[in-house]
Amino acid sequence: MIKNQPIGIFDSGIGGLTVLNEVGKLMPNENIVYFGDTARVPYGNKSELIIKKFSVENILFLLQEKVKMVVVACNSSSALALDYLNDIFRIPIIGVIEAGINKALAVTSGKIGIIGTKATIESKAYQKNITKKNKKIKIFSKSCPLFVPLVEEGLVGGEITEKVVEMYLEDFKKKKIDTIILGCTHYPLLKKEIAKYLQGVTIVNSAQEVANHAKEVLDHFELANEKKSKVSKKLCLSDESKNFTKFAKLFLKKAVAEIKIINV
Amino acid sequence: MIKNQPIGIFDSGIGGLTVLNEVGKLMPNENIVYFGDTARVPYGNKSELIIKKFSVENILFLLQEKVKMVVVACNSSSALALDYLNDIFRIPIIGVIEAGINKALAVTSGKIGIIGTKATIESKAYQKNITKKNKKIKIFSKSCPLFVPLVEEGLVGGEITEKVVEMYLEDFKKKKIDTIILGCTHYPLLKKEIAKYLQGVTIVNSAQEVANHAKEVLDHFELANEKKSKVSKKLCLSDESKNFTKFAKLFLKKAVAEIKIINV
Repeated sequence: MIKNQPIGIFDSGIGGLTVLNEVGKLMPNENIVYFGDTARVPYGNKSELIIKKFSVENILFLLQEKVKMVVVACNSSSALALDYLNDIFRIPIIGVIEAGINKALAVTSGKIGIIGTKATIESKAYQKNITKKNKKIKIFSKSCPLFVPLVEEGLVGGEITEKVVEMYLEDFKKKKIDTIILGCTHYPLLKKEIAKYLQGVTIVNSAQEVANHAKEVLDHFELANEKKSKVSKKLCLSDESKNFTKFAKLFLKKAVAEIKIINV
Repeated sequence: MIKNQPIGIFDSGIGGLTVLNEVGKLMPNENIVYFGDTARVPYGNKSELIIKKFSVENILFLLQEKVKMVVVACNSSSALALDYLNDIFRIPIIGVIEAGINKALAVTSGKIGIIGTKATIESKAYQKNITKKNKKIKIFSKSCPLFVPLVEEGLVGGEITEKVVEMYLEDFKKKKIDTIILGCTHYPLLKKEIAKYLQGVTIVNSAQEVANHAKEVLDHFELANEKKSKVSKKLCLSDESKNFTKFAKLFLKKAVAEIKIINV
């Protein structure tokens, strides 16, 4: 493994750009290849079998790009496929879930709420992992299938979004959770609305946490890039996406250069 | 071509079951194979290139099932891939768009509104086709990306859905359309809400119209099944779908027997 090989990041779509952003900020020397499976997005309402199959294909593509490690930015894939992927592939592969959990456990006073896609919530990956680390934590979970389409429709504020946030999070409010994990890469864009409804609750954004974890892994395996040469960030998608430029701006807060379309 | 061969129907997901239902009611002697591409659903926010690719793969699967004709129940695929599919394949392939348009033209007094996915609306397939047949018609169109997730979340009534209907159809009301085409297989489930908001407007449901068109095509090619033997309805999906049974009941108004999972 050569230190200047890129870090691979994949997501079912473009939401994982939040992870790309955090990884780039934390490790400015690293080359990155991002793959968004826009042809088959979303993963969140699909089965374990198909999510594993798609995840393997995504990593096979990233391996062609000679990545030295993979960050699974997709929560559904992290929840359902991560162990399976680590059984198959030789390079280190990390997911967004453990990083989010570690942060939540560090800040909670005992009641954690988890929101995510159907696949993520029904997998119980967050719930099992938290209980393994601390049996005393009270865990509440809710799948929020309308959050991703709301974000993609640009409705990150306003009356409809308020009502939907209330519909999904009403129970968390009643249960008086103190910490909420945003278990989907799109949800940070609704952070303001969620914070407004759940006042006083600590919000854990897995994108930031997984970047820290990725850095630890690279340091552990002595794989961090030390050369301060020109860094490349390559964006690859399985389907052209008219919204991509719009969302890339929203997520990365800057314009994107070249986008490559990959046949899956 | 043998008359007792099945009719093939495909959709990006399970919404096309509304078409299966209408075809089955109108032609009770016909065997049917339905394919729902649940592994790659939805098509509505994807590119022309990828929708063509997926549509070809779906028909190749239906041909293995020895279908005598194909009904493309998916509006996005009908809008973007139908001509391409008819150029490639020998068997008759019909889509939902022309059938819906013919009905709308028969009932309108001059102002037609069209709603559908982004891919369908941006393709301008409805708009171009209507203008070709009658230049005097005033056409208004609107993509409604939140309608499918609302239906899939079971929100076919209530405050949130009312607000979303208003957000998307406000302009149609101002423009005083007299006819609206539901250009997506999921939308008939929101018919009540749409009718409530657009009082007095005629609603065209393409699922019914395409069944009539399919019957005409079979009669024309003398392919209709005359034998009144036991009829088979086979349901195939590219991914198992936990919601399938629920939606099959909602769409077909009866329980479904066997579901087969196909690798795409």
